[in-house]
Amino acid sequence: MRELNPVLQTFRDSPFTQMTLRALELGAVNLGQGFPDHAPPAFVQEALQQSFTGPQQYVPVAGLLSLREELARDAKKRLGLNLDAATEVTITAGATEAVQSALQGILQPGDEVVILEPTYDMYAPQVKLAGGVPVFVPLKFEGSYVLDAEGLKSALSEKTRVIILNTPHNPTGKVFTKAELQAIAALAIQHDLYVISDEVYDRLTYGAAHTCIHTLEGMQDRTITVGSAGKTFAVTGWRVGWAFASAALSKAIRGVHQWVSFCAPSPLQQATMLALKTAQTFDYSASVQQDYVQKRDFLSSALQEAGFPISRPEGGYFVVADVSHMGMTEQQACDWMLKVVGVASIPMGVFYDQGVSPFAGLRFAFCKGQETLEQAAERLYAGCKVL
Amino acid sequence: MRELNPVLQTFRDSPFTQMTLRALELGAVNLGQGFPDHAPPAFVQEALQQSFTGPQQYVPVAGLLSLREELARDAKKRLGLNLDAATEVTITAGATEAVQSALQGILQPGDEVVILEPTYDMYAPQVKLAGGVPVFVPLKFEGSYVLDAEGLKSALSEKTRVIILNTPHNPTGKVFTKAELQAIAALAIQHDLYVISDEVYDRLTYGAAHTCIHTLEGMQDRTITVGSAGKTFAVTGWRVGWAFASAALSKAIRGVHQWVSFCAPSPLQQATMLALKTAQTFDYSASVQQDYVQKRDFLSSALQEAGFPISRPEGGYFVVADVSHMGMTEQQACDWMLKVVGVASIPMGVFYDQGVSPFAGLRFAFCKGQETLEQAAERLYAGCKVL
Repeated sequence: MRELNPVLQTFRDSPFTQMTLRALELGAVNLGQGFPDHAPPAFVQEALQQSFTGPQQYVPVAGLLSLREELARDAKKRLGLNLDAATEVTITAGATEAVQSALQGILQPGDEVVILEPTYDMYAPQVKLAGGVPVFVPLKFEGSYVLDAEGLKSALSEKTRVIILNTPHNPTGKVFTKAELQAIAALAIQHDLYVISDEVYDRLTYGAAHTCIHTLEGMQDRTITVGSAGKTFAVTGWRVGWAFASAALSKAIRGVHQWVSFCAPSPLQQATMLALKTAQTFDYSASVQQDYVQKRDFLSSALQEAGFPISRPEGGYFVVADVSHMGMTEQQACDWMLKVVGVASIPMGVFYDQGVSPFAGLRFAFCKGQETLEQAAERLYAGCKVL
Repeated sequence: MRELNPVLQTFRDSPFTQMTLRALELGAVNLGQGFPDHAPPAFVQEALQQSFTGPQQYVPVAGLLSLREELARDAKKRLGLNLDAATEVTITAGATEAVQSALQGILQPGDEVVILEPTYDMYAPQVKLAGGVPVFVPLKFEGSYVLDAEGLKSALSEKTRVIILNTPHNPTGKVFTKAELQAIAALAIQHDLYVISDEVYDRLTYGAAHTCIHTLEGMQDRTITVGSAGKTFAVTGWRVGWAFASAALSKAIRGVHQWVSFCAPSPLQQATMLALKTAQTFDYSASVQQDYVQKRDFLSSALQEAGFPISRPEGGYFVVADVSHMGMTEQQACDWMLKVVGVASIPMGVFYDQGVSPFAGLRFAFCKGQETLEQAAERLYAGCKVL
């Protein structure tokens, strides 16, 4: 048989799915893949129930108008972002497809896209699928992760078209400061670049303030802000995401989106719209933050008590534990944690293009039910005593 | 701002969505876009209800295993196709994403893809997004549409990698005969090509036998058969599709799929699985055919009585009316039908790369409730008297 697309040979299977399968097989507590193992909030389940009487057929390519309107209202209120629901909001098959359609809507073959490392492992293959070339710029690690503005500047070339940003950040839990975002914005404006800002964890901040780079001066027409129902409402399987962008950029995103997935699932768009409506009747963000701060603190303390230095995450689903004192490679430490301790994690190397993290680290997800976290803590205490 | 992907400038907005908007605006009966306006079958609605207690988080990239198993069982029973659910079935964000992921999994820049015309307008932009070049081969029109095997053969070049097939066929209602499929298979084998066979209407045949080209000798490793819950269960908004292909091809499809949409919507995969289970307890295909034969006959007769020659479709959702005696261009006839008669249709030129059909024709969808069809018939009788 004829050769297939050779770009695929540079891809690997999702390490998250693989870890979930191994955890299942070995009966390990799965803090590897970042999906909630607790039920979604009751009002979200109710919205799903109600959506049953909603649309079952195609909705417009751009998405259900009522959902786009709720999102525009919410973006104005929470992020200070002014959007026209008709022309500047597009509903996609999850945040995944939002980033992919944005990249394909912008890139020409050979265009370069800057990705800050460590990075969620989705962006680089997406850039390649869209014909682009990923260029990696590491965050500096100084006890916590900080932007290397000089490094970013020197990575830009004539061919750079896009910077991909992710805040709150997976895997590190970093929330980019306003000053860092201003530095990125200044470079984007100076070099006439687009910024794709993946902000799926935008409600999940623990003290630190989330800034949407889209709202900074000069960024309105060059930012694509990406979000999702999956992360907002703890329903990662719904596959309802969105892209906020200028009318011109939205037209490009929709131009790709209609041939990639045509429209996002109609009943789940309806459910998302209903859930968003309810979320606005009380301070949903505060309630989810309160819940997640507890989860973060519980797991962070458990890791510390088990002997692992951590940098307490400011946002998101994850905490990174430093395992360099174990005298093993990161992969060995991950395997040991999985097989001996019985807790699944993800080695930090996965989040670097060259597979190497500046220190041996493991990423643990804390978006889990209290019972799961307690079981993990017990295993960490018991298993890591020997260290 | 920097230039966006120039490929997009060759795309146009979906004429189906546009026509739906115009029909709404003008109060026309919408036989333009091919979505059912009647409720899905009761057992499908029940499956949806039951899915609420099912998975709300990510399922594996390849899809919910229980759904893949049901599909493999169904493919064996109905199509005579033997599939390994683990490695040869992939669930995608609708049939749209199945075709897109297949194309991106196969094509390298400049590879050619043969598309038979008239054609559903999705394939050509998808080929371009995947870096390929669409090559169009018209079906011959001899009262009905037939394969031009010589024309197909002469369109193949060194660069051809894929033939896209669609049977039962949108927009013509043609069901490719076994002899035609054998001719296509022979060329595919001789030139070492892949065939992407879009068979979303595979249950909707009216007398003619549907053959799955995947089952013909030598085609097992070179065919990707595409289907969808949307067309199977009259729920086009669910966005649950699938691709059947060899393990090697499925690996490529999944390699793209995981970065395009990661996985299809979990609750709707569960609902599709439950609906498929129920559909196997009675002869669902026969029941849906019985229903659709009536719709086809009703609309076909209405068009004939209103003075339009038609070729009675053997499958699918659509019937094409010849409007060449009206002394107008096709687009004028479509506008007149919309504004004066009050019935929305799609001009056949939309289904040709160069915008020109061999005769002036309009496509009407009959996948509508009886009330809609009756209203359309009344308007056709009244409005077309003047012709």
